Amino acid sequence: MSDRIDRDTATRLTATEAAAAIASGALDAETLARGCLDKMAAREDVLKAWAYVDPAAVLRQARELDQTPSFGLLHGIPVAIKDVIDTRDMPTCHNSPIFFGHRPGADAGCVETLRAAGALIIGKTETTEFAAAGRHPPTRNPHDPRRISGGSSAGSAAAVGDGQVPLALGTQTGGSLIRPASFCGAYACKPTWGAVSREGARVYSITLDTIGWYGRSVADLDLMAEVYGIGRAQPAPASLDGVRIAFCRSPAWAATEPAMRDAFAAAERILTDAGATVTTLELPEAFSGLAAAHQVILFREGRAAFLNLYRAHKDLLHDEFRHRVENRDGFTDQALVAAYDLAARCRTEFDAIASGFDAIVTPSAPGEAPMGIGGGSPALNLIWTLLHVPCINLPAMRSPAGMPLGLTVTGPRFSDRRLLACAKVLDQAFIAKQPQGQGKVA
Amino acid sequence: MSDRIDRDTATRLTATEAAAAIASGALDAETLARGCLDKMAAREDVLKAWAYVDPAAVLRQARELDQTPSFGLLHGIPVAIKDVIDTRDMPTCHNSPIFFGHRPGADAGCVETLRAAGALIIGKTETTEFAAAGRHPPTRNPHDPRRISGGSSAGSAAAVGDGQVPLALGTQTGGSLIRPASFCGAYACKPTWGAVSREGARVYSITLDTIGWYGRSVADLDLMAEVYGIGRAQPAPASLDGVRIAFCRSPAWAATEPAMRDAFAAAERILTDAGATVTTLELPEAFSGLAAAHQVILFREGRAAFLNLYRAHKDLLHDEFRHRVENRDGFTDQALVAAYDLAARCRTEFDAIASGFDAIVTPSAPGEAPMGIGGGSPALNLIWTLLHVPCINLPAMRSPAGMPLGLTVTGPRFSDRRLLACAKVLDQAFIAKQPQGQGKVA
Repeated sequence: MSDRIDRDTATRLTATEAAAAIASGALDAETLARGCLDKMAAREDVLKAWAYVDPAAVLRQARELDQTPSFGLLHGIPVAIKDVIDTRDMPTCHNSPIFFGHRPGADAGCVETLRAAGALIIGKTETTEFAAAGRHPPTRNPHDPRRISGGSSAGSAAAVGDGQVPLALGTQTGGSLIRPASFCGAYACKPTWGAVSREGARVYSITLDTIGWYGRSVADLDLMAEVYGIGRAQPAPASLDGVRIAFCRSPAWAATEPAMRDAFAAAERILTDAGATVTTLELPEAFSGLAAAHQVILFREGRAAFLNLYRAHKDLLHDEFRHRVENRDGFTDQALVAAYDLAARCRTEFDAIASGFDAIVTPSAPGEAPMGIGGGSPALNLIWTLLHVPCINLPAMRSPAGMPLGLTVTGPRFSDRRLLACAKVLDQAFIAKQPQGQGKVA
Repeated sequence: MSDRIDRDTATRLTATEAAAAIASGALDAETLARGCLDKMAAREDVLKAWAYVDPAAVLRQARELDQTPSFGLLHGIPVAIKDVIDTRDMPTCHNSPIFFGHRPGADAGCVETLRAAGALIIGKTETTEFAAAGRHPPTRNPHDPRRISGGSSAGSAAAVGDGQVPLALGTQTGGSLIRPASFCGAYACKPTWGAVSREGARVYSITLDTIGWYGRSVADLDLMAEVYGIGRAQPAPASLDGVRIAFCRSPAWAATEPAMRDAFAAAERILTDAGATVTTLELPEAFSGLAAAHQVILFREGRAAFLNLYRAHKDLLHDEFRHRVENRDGFTDQALVAAYDLAARCRTEFDAIASGFDAIVTPSAPGEAPMGIGGGSPALNLIWTLLHVPCINLPAMRSPAGMPLGLTVTGPRFSDRRLLACAKVLDQAFIAKQPQGQGKVA
């Protein structure tokens, strides 16, 4: 107990390290929480990551946790929650004027599971309106505040990418977890569709909505997968020797920018040099229809999702949601059924293709975070969301401007834990090739 | 205004008739609400359909509606809500001790849409625990209180089947809308999957959960489809001449009892005699795997759905939910993926098959409502739920004991309104063949 970890050091630990330190008695939850709250406060004027934080309530809970025997894998670990996910003790506002100050009074399933593992829910993070469209989040990029953090899980990605908190929950319907992770230099996991309950998280598209998380390392992502009971931990390969990696440009390759293309090529060289068996994967022609299918499903399911708000609060609903409800694009039932059926066929086919590799690597975003405002393009993420496959973002590369460029590691449905194990050795190879400090959070 | 409808007469109107009467000034919402509350109170000791009713609050709202210009299709029409669907002004308890007295503080999407159409939310109805498993509803059958009303939408089906209220919301994950409708002699509609938002309704299985409703006529079901913005109203065929009906025994035919088999054969004769072109449909061999696929999906998705309650409230969670979370049946990821993919293939195939008919008719339940307690078997409903197709229950037939026997009218995904139009003429043919008063609500 004499070698206690101080507040500043605590905030540089990964979630996995901090949990071990708390379990060993070298760290207490209050110290860690105070460190996070300090960093959050110091950066909030610039980054605007937070929709709601009650520091006094956080510290009270941290002290409670310090007086409670450790009861879970996340005992005392701060976790930020995207503000489209219900929390019993904080408002959930969806960045919508309809829900200003709304207090749902119960935790979403995914939040209750975190609390049952001992997590300290530290605050709510900024989001695109309903994690969908309409109002942009105000959040700036932690690596360059002139740039966006990406949408829709903007605050969660920025808070983790900035080193304010070790873990955060987000959601993905298009590219809302992985794209901001790429922009903000955070590790992220979108698990297989359906693996985590969406009870109490705002619905946009039943077929697409997925709960996921941000962390400071692949081990952090794996820790969260364990908390949510997804599969079983898998041993990481001892090295990349013989590990079969497919580099997949995806049908959205045309959306990539030169910085990402260069980084993608460099990443292929890094993994090849490290001993991996690297091949190039081109998806069958049918997959080129998935982006359009994604949009039909998104807009048509969004029609059902926002009907009640349209009917009851039309004046306060952004026109982009009225667009969905009025089906202004005129997507027919036939088009929707065709989209469902194409997606289903491609899921089966992708699983078969992906089973020939240990991991598939593909870009997480078109390029570095854009300047200005907005959410950025989800083009590189849409098809993986629709395929329901697990996606892990590694903050592997940098642009010439020094901004993070993420790579997605993906594979068949429900290969989450095997992929996470494989991603550990990929991540090590990327870190070994980076200049000192690069790719690490502040 | 002199020809005003009295309380007793009002409660015998269908929702469609009552809405027209309110719109014309011949009826007011308070009179109708008082009539419903009287019937509910008179029968509750025997039937136990209600989880929560606040008569004074209902009457206050009815008077408010009477003082408001009519603003929607359901102005002043009482609608009962299954107690797994959130209501802002009433508890939502899921028939679970974990949620006794729980007040979510916001309406589910499907409830807010009803209120925006002017509906009077009259109370919450009894349900199987979480509309899933565990605790049975206490509800008795309105046609014979020694018999069950079926699960899980027990209270909604019984309240409508007993003539207490004209409309009610329910949910179906296995056979939870259509089976109780068959047992209780109610009209019911399970729309195409995804057509109605499930925001704020308890999640069991993302792939299967569907919001639906009960009414007193096919026109009532169609009115609700209009309120939820599902497709466009379709003209009913002038007669059954040339209407192509397929009688489908479904792969679960072995579960049917003699009374249903006889009724099914009699129904085929009635429609044939009425001029329909009736053929027999046997589904391809692949469809015989759908019931097993349903169970794998249900149990595995239920694992994610109940994880948080298992972790946070294990002692209060019925063992059948612990069973799901612990995956005691050992359903593998591979089995789950195979189930998803089989269902997807069969959806495409069924749509193609069904497009050759105006309607497909299949049993709504194995037979009449069983004696005793329990929910009854969903065997006849599972595959249609998994296929995501619209299902309409017609209380078309009677058992030798005089109990209702329902028939399901189904067709391709998103054919809801066309099916409802067709169901109107089927229903007329069945009504014409029934002894006086049979198949009509009390």
